[in-house]
Amino acid sequence: MMVPMSSYCVFCEIIARREPATILYEDDNVIVFRNRLNWVPVMLLAVPKQHMEQSELWTSEVITKVAKAAAEQGAAHCAGGFRLLSNFGYDAMQSQPHAHVHIVGGTFLGEYA
Amino acid sequence: MMVPMSSYCVFCEIIARREPATILYEDDNVIVFRNRLNWVPVMLLAVPKQHMEQSELWTSEVITKVAKAAAEQGAAHCAGGFRLLSNFGYDAMQSQPHAHVHIVGGTFLGEYA
Repeated sequence: MMVPMSSYCVFCEIIARREPATILYEDDNVIVFRNRLNWVPVMLLAVPKQHMEQSELWTSEVITKVAKAAAEQGAAHCAGGFRLLSNFGYDAMQSQPHAHVHIVGGTFLGEYA
Repeated sequence: MMVPMSSYCVFCEIIARREPATILYEDDNVIVFRNRLNWVPVMLLAVPKQHMEQSELWTSEVITKVAKAAAEQGAAHCAGGFRLLSNFGYDAMQSQPHAHVHIVGGTFLGEYA
């Protein structure tokens, strides 16, 4: 389901170049930029350019494009390994409605749960 | 790239029903079963039936099938939200070569890195 862009979305603003971001990769469908957080040395976000919810990304063909960009950028920036993840809802601390895959690495990450 | 099944793979054994597992979902391409770990209340694994490496899963069309099953099983078993993730290499503590997406939830998960 398309989510109407009736409210402010920081990822849509970054895609439209109305908010700053360090962009590492971009094609017609996907953008990868640095997260503003710095909990670990590498924190990137792979984001579909079309505004959609997490569940739409993960259950549609769009995931192939976002997943490929995420895996390739993880390998390019994290020689020792990396974790790809998406958060859904409160228990996972999802903070942005616009779908995204986190790329984290650059240090030993420890257990995943 | 196909990885020849020259060595023991516990996920291939589960798919072949030679190792036990609690299977929650299965189709021609994907299987979802409970992780043997119990760090959080819900720990599931979404696995392509074909033996392949993480990087092949995430850069091929196979990810659409695994991602959809993972998102649907997460929503079905984790009312409060869930995290989908894949670990690549040492820094992320990847322990199985056979590609897989973790589904974790059933409690407040905290930060993701």
